[in-house]
Amino acid sequence: MVKEGKVLLDLEIPQVVSSKMQVFYNPHMRENRDFTLLMLLCMPEEELLVCDPMGASGVRALRLLLEVPKNIRLIYNDISPKAVAYFEELLKRYKVPQERVQIYSEDASLLLRRLRNLDYVDIDPFGSPTPFLESALLPLKRHGLLAITATDTSVLSGTYPKTCLRRYGALPLLSCEFYHEVGIRILIKKVIEEGAKFDYAFRPVFSYSYKHYFRVFFRKDIGPRRADNLLEKVGYLLYCEKCLYRKSVALEELQSRCPYCDNRLLMAGPLWLGELWDRELVESMWEKRGRVDISETTSRLLKRIRQEAKVNSVGFYTVSGFSKAFRIGQPPPIERFLEVFEGVRTHFTGEGFRTSLDHEEVLRRSHELLQRA
Amino acid sequence: MVKEGKVLLDLEIPQVVSSKMQVFYNPHMRENRDFTLLMLLCMPEEELLVCDPMGASGVRALRLLLEVPKNIRLIYNDISPKAVAYFEELLKRYKVPQERVQIYSEDASLLLRRLRNLDYVDIDPFGSPTPFLESALLPLKRHGLLAITATDTSVLSGTYPKTCLRRYGALPLLSCEFYHEVGIRILIKKVIEEGAKFDYAFRPVFSYSYKHYFRVFFRKDIGPRRADNLLEKVGYLLYCEKCLYRKSVALEELQSRCPYCDNRLLMAGPLWLGELWDRELVESMWEKRGRVDISETTSRLLKRIRQEAKVNSVGFYTVSGFSKAFRIGQPPPIERFLEVFEGVRTHFTGEGFRTSLDHEEVLRRSHELLQRA
Repeated sequence: MVKEGKVLLDLEIPQVVSSKMQVFYNPHMRENRDFTLLMLLCMPEEELLVCDPMGASGVRALRLLLEVPKNIRLIYNDISPKAVAYFEELLKRYKVPQERVQIYSEDASLLLRRLRNLDYVDIDPFGSPTPFLESALLPLKRHGLLAITATDTSVLSGTYPKTCLRRYGALPLLSCEFYHEVGIRILIKKVIEEGAKFDYAFRPVFSYSYKHYFRVFFRKDIGPRRADNLLEKVGYLLYCEKCLYRKSVALEELQSRCPYCDNRLLMAGPLWLGELWDRELVESMWEKRGRVDISETTSRLLKRIRQEAKVNSVGFYTVSGFSKAFRIGQPPPIERFLEVFEGVRTHFTGEGFRTSLDHEEVLRRSHELLQRA
Repeated sequence: MVKEGKVLLDLEIPQVVSSKMQVFYNPHMRENRDFTLLMLLCMPEEELLVCDPMGASGVRALRLLLEVPKNIRLIYNDISPKAVAYFEELLKRYKVPQERVQIYSEDASLLLRRLRNLDYVDIDPFGSPTPFLESALLPLKRHGLLAITATDTSVLSGTYPKTCLRRYGALPLLSCEFYHEVGIRILIKKVIEEGAKFDYAFRPVFSYSYKHYFRVFFRKDIGPRRADNLLEKVGYLLYCEKCLYRKSVALEELQSRCPYCDNRLLMAGPLWLGELWDRELVESMWEKRGRVDISETTSRLLKRIRQEAKVNSVGFYTVSGFSKAFRIGQPPPIERFLEVFEGVRTHFTGEGFRTSLDHEEVLRRSHELLQRA
């Protein structure tokens, strides 16, 4: 038996998670589902039309019906008839009124393309979300939310750069401290690009990396000028492995040598260079976190992101990366870094911190850190 | 009455072509349909499953059924019931056996996503093909052909660069002699990119620009390595307005100053830098041109492309552009340019020529041209 939120499932917790499971339930995704609930809670509408096109065991679907105190109508879909049968059984057991749920069992992209006026779509596939992106962004109404989960984090983070180029049309950057952030920014770029084809503007409002997956929520808006505004914040990242210089640039500003140490620069992109979080939304999530049943971990993650969202930087530093680059044999504790660089911690890694200081100032203060370390 | 190939239509030739016409027939697209017939004739298969998802008046569909001497089964679709009724009437009049045709009247993308194992798909929408690309490349079988017509040539050629960035994810370049070629190369890049998301390789095999539209035929192949091979030929174009220097480069080779005259370089891309034609296919089309009823214009276009395909260059020169850049008051006839630069004419414009000489050699010989002009 598995308990998640208000839902009790008569499934064994799987030893190994695989797409071949008859009814798919992934216990490592509890936080993923928690954030769905929190996000729906924070939407201004009291009535919501929600689609879970890869519904699997239905735990996400059932939790949002039972736990979010709003008038939610749900469109559930899973290609597997076994999953559908399992979910139907669950609905009966929990006495969910029939009129709240529509059930389909077909190709997710085909279904999405027939739907209209959705407030929320949650794309949580096994593997890369790319095959579903175009279909997922069409049926959302203006100001609707699109949630994208990507489990191909090693592709987005640079272990397989050619695959990243094929799937996401961008160069990743494995050899920087914040390769996960680069990956999430590439994922965001891809969604923005798919939206722009239709004059839609998909602005990221909440992003995180956790365990084996990345996840980003986007708010849809409509109109060519709005799409242009987003595309203006798509560009490239220059990075120096030697002195940790990093800079966001437009295509025409690309350069090959580090202006500080003349080392050959590395490059990533195109990627999203704007904000990863809508601060107002994060505050609202933080305030409302007690009103739905989220795990301790979800709460901790949200707490850290709430701090992190206050500093708007592309990339962060890590204690180990910094110490290696500047040859600090015995690095001081992270608190010392936070102090010297006016930093905040990042949820991406326990030893990471963001700062809004520019690189010249970071270099200057690194001497300070060294002298007093 | 309108006659095209073996088909006689009881439609008035429209004064103005508009998507609001009840049954859509565009007389300026005869050449477009001629090339469909020729292409089907040149495919190695004797049995073909063909889809015309924006069938309109059905003249393309009917012509390929009547004029291509192969065992063709056709899937016709048009969202307008009036168009469908008109086409059904035509089929009866020409006594086309029912089993050769399947007729649908629905959203083209939805239909395409339900189909499988197609040999040929022809996308000829009113406006940009971008909304249909992803759906169109899925149902083709390996080695099947995809034909894409784009009538948003002003967007692709640089009149509306922001729209080009939204729809095609690339910067066009209006201020060069070969802005149409840049546009076609951007269109090709977009199709390759859409295919690569699914590990498909869509290689352009025949491209042309005519009147108000661009058109490219792609052969589908499958596999990540094949897709990677195509993406390796996607890059950028550098261009100097002053000395006409042009160079295809990879992202990391971008530069801002002309190596010949130090002028600020212009840039376009990402775009396709490979070949625009499969020469073997062009030869086969040329040989077989007498076996289908194509117009004089189609034949002339093919003849010029046959010559043009022998020189593999990105971009071409024009007599007027050359004369302006090198201040030639009385330019010699184009034949003189062809001779000096070992050039061939291009179908893109009557005063254009391609050469495989590099820019240094072009500069050197331009003096020769001047001295003897």
